Amino acid sequence: MTLPTPESLAELKAALPGAWTQDAAEMAPWLTEWRGRWTGETPLLLQPRTTEEVARAVEICARHGTAIVTQGGGTGLVGGQIPYGEVLLSTRKLRTVRDVTPLDDAMTVEAGVTLLEAQELAKEKGRFFPLSLAAEGSATIGGVISTNAGGTAVLRYGMMRDLVLGIEAVMPDGQVFNGLKRLRKDNTGYDLKQMFIGAEGTLGVVTAATLKLFPIMRSRATAIVGLESHHDAVVLLARAKAETGGGVEAFELMKRLGMSLVLKNIPDTREPLETTPPWYVLIELTSGEPDGAEAAMERLLTAAFEEGLIVDAAIAQNDAQKAEFWRLREEHSAALKPEGGGWKHDVSVPVSRIADFIDEATAAVEKFHPGCRVSVFGHVGDGNLHYDVIPGVGEDVAAFIARWMEGSEVIHDVVARYDGSISAEHGLGRLKTDEARRYKSPLEVATMQAIRQAIDPQRIMNPAVLF
Amino acid sequence: MTLPTPESLAELKAALPGAWTQDAAEMAPWLTEWRGRWTGETPLLLQPRTTEEVARAVEICARHGTAIVTQGGGTGLVGGQIPYGEVLLSTRKLRTVRDVTPLDDAMTVEAGVTLLEAQELAKEKGRFFPLSLAAEGSATIGGVISTNAGGTAVLRYGMMRDLVLGIEAVMPDGQVFNGLKRLRKDNTGYDLKQMFIGAEGTLGVVTAATLKLFPIMRSRATAIVGLESHHDAVVLLARAKAETGGGVEAFELMKRLGMSLVLKNIPDTREPLETTPPWYVLIELTSGEPDGAEAAMERLLTAAFEEGLIVDAAIAQNDAQKAEFWRLREEHSAALKPEGGGWKHDVSVPVSRIADFIDEATAAVEKFHPGCRVSVFGHVGDGNLHYDVIPGVGEDVAAFIARWMEGSEVIHDVVARYDGSISAEHGLGRLKTDEARRYKSPLEVATMQAIRQAIDPQRIMNPAVLF
Repeated sequence: MTLPTPESLAELKAALPGAWTQDAAEMAPWLTEWRGRWTGETPLLLQPRTTEEVARAVEICARHGTAIVTQGGGTGLVGGQIPYGEVLLSTRKLRTVRDVTPLDDAMTVEAGVTLLEAQELAKEKGRFFPLSLAAEGSATIGGVISTNAGGTAVLRYGMMRDLVLGIEAVMPDGQVFNGLKRLRKDNTGYDLKQMFIGAEGTLGVVTAATLKLFPIMRSRATAIVGLESHHDAVVLLARAKAETGGGVEAFELMKRLGMSLVLKNIPDTREPLETTPPWYVLIELTSGEPDGAEAAMERLLTAAFEEGLIVDAAIAQNDAQKAEFWRLREEHSAALKPEGGGWKHDVSVPVSRIADFIDEATAAVEKFHPGCRVSVFGHVGDGNLHYDVIPGVGEDVAAFIARWMEGSEVIHDVVARYDGSISAEHGLGRLKTDEARRYKSPLEVATMQAIRQAIDPQRIMNPAVLF
Repeated sequence: MTLPTPESLAELKAALPGAWTQDAAEMAPWLTEWRGRWTGETPLLLQPRTTEEVARAVEICARHGTAIVTQGGGTGLVGGQIPYGEVLLSTRKLRTVRDVTPLDDAMTVEAGVTLLEAQELAKEKGRFFPLSLAAEGSATIGGVISTNAGGTAVLRYGMMRDLVLGIEAVMPDGQVFNGLKRLRKDNTGYDLKQMFIGAEGTLGVVTAATLKLFPIMRSRATAIVGLESHHDAVVLLARAKAETGGGVEAFELMKRLGMSLVLKNIPDTREPLETTPPWYVLIELTSGEPDGAEAAMERLLTAAFEEGLIVDAAIAQNDAQKAEFWRLREEHSAALKPEGGGWKHDVSVPVSRIADFIDEATAAVEKFHPGCRVSVFGHVGDGNLHYDVIPGVGEDVAAFIARWMEGSEVIHDVVARYDGSISAEHGLGRLKTDEARRYKSPLEVATMQAIRQAIDPQRIMNPAVLF
């Protein structure tokens, strides 16, 4: 990796007047990962305001062989956005909304528009942009494309990859790839835009994108149900899909332990059901029909009760109750902190195997570290679990955290046996690339490297992330 | 391009006993394109029965630098499946259904399973596989992946790219890429399976795939409506999406000319409406709610009438009537033949611009060839039109057909001005690659070539197709 030289820095500054800083205080917030897990350094923060400025900057870096880290909102969880000596190129100032065309169910925005802003733009025009995640106020469109972000609506609408119609990007040599088509169909060679999605900034800088929009649903019903066994959750999910023709927007599994920690550690929460079942599922159904979601929820829960698939249920009667139900799910991560934190994992397995996976991973980790407690929750509909292991009550927290990497290997080995993924949503970044090598075939790694070599022969784009 | 040598042929035959032929009669059906537009030749037809046999064959070809054309069901429309001296590798005998897992909404089938068989496998397990096109009885899964096929359900379910969870493929050096994951989420580096989709066999041989399945809809309503203007069709489509929460499965525009030719040239057809409007749309709505689709259709058409968006409408009262409506649309191509055939185009533009495009393209082509007649029909919801130009009544057909390429350029230039695609569904193959160069940027072509060079440095896979 070639770090910036005085010559390349001088040329960059001259070429981007008013669009750079070397001020330590101004740069500081962008050099420390938001949870404080990594702090990096850079000799220069570039803040281009147009695609043309991005192209100029990358062309100069390419000519000097200077390494670049591209950063969006800085909300990534695997350290991919933090430079360690590279030039830091922020896309946050690419702020133009190029068009919103309701009749195309499409809008074109630049990379620095936040996810929340994109949702709001769609809403203003009577449309829905479905990608939604906790960091949406800061996360940018460029960032969520580069990391192929997931979130809470994947079950129905897919990951970010599924929501992109077109991409504009600056290639590693500074040329502008203009793939901002609003087309639904185009079979004229390789679909080059796919290359940039989930590439974590290694194949170019995404500067703008055309996104798919959807109709706004006419009805929405939310319930929390209690289950005797997590094995029933997958069957219930299939029933819910059949009952709604695919109108299941969320299907979130929660375990008694996680729920009880939310009730214990998070203020203003209360048990949602009259009983205290070992497992919960939060279900959200939507329908294009007025009152369709409510009717489907009634049909689903009535049949599930009769069949013994669920033991208890509460349907939200109003928006406040709906928010209360969602809060129980959303506070699951925060509720672990007062217990000393834990070993966290973002894994996925085939949906049908999720309950068996939970059983086998839990047995393995309890054998590895007797007395630990397992909190598992997440997007069952996507096969995606947040599988967190916390210390036993009264256990030494520092000693427990010290075993994180070893413990993760135990869990990830089970994931691999289930043909799963060790990073369902968060990517590899700097944190997980080495670990991923353990589970990827040499052919996969070599093929990714061959593509990278073809597109970025100097390896100047985010050189420390991916393979 | 290196054609097979006696040595490479001998080695291939020895390595694949019982899985090859050089018999002219046996090979003949696979060397002529199904409409008879191209007839090629090959010294050897390989018909491997397992992925391992495919890998063995490709490894031998790679060692000798021998060129290969891969063929599925042979239903392609751009000549990509026809060899001109290359070894012909058919995937039709890869016939194993590896698994169907309803709880994952997924099934894994080998490349030679036909699209129709895949649909039926899904149905047997209470699920729906949405890709559907006229050639589905012959088209294979390997073929529809390699060409990223579209068809009639793209509006709701997307192209083949959107329906693939995992791919197994033999790389150009004979190594097997095993990407048959059933995962909905996996962010661990580049999504390599995307590479093989729509690559027209140039980056490897798809040997098996894991496909997404969907719930079966509970209700379905079909109507034909009459419009004064094609400009109203796009507005009506937006209303239909809003009314159903995206449950519009088909939205097919037809013009009076095409309809009148169907009524004239196809037996047992009759005018679907009491009036004879200049434009028709066939609408199919579905819903997960029992009777939901019928209710939504009523709401949609009632409001559209009141607003003056439509002038006439007929809702199919039973399956027979539904089939009758669909036949009017499906016979549009066949109805052109007795008129002497025509210049055919498979183009797409942004949905919102489709009516303007029709106006401008028609003006351009009528100027280029006064007296010609334009039949335009297709998937408005995807922005995809079959834009066919036929000779004037009594005109010399041979002279007309001789102007096809020139006429196409007139139409495709308008497509380019509308940011459209000159091959929405059918791919480029041997037929359209040269023409596509006219509309692609040098950067796009160079990037595709760089990827191809990285994956297939000897260019042995379908060397004559794409860039």
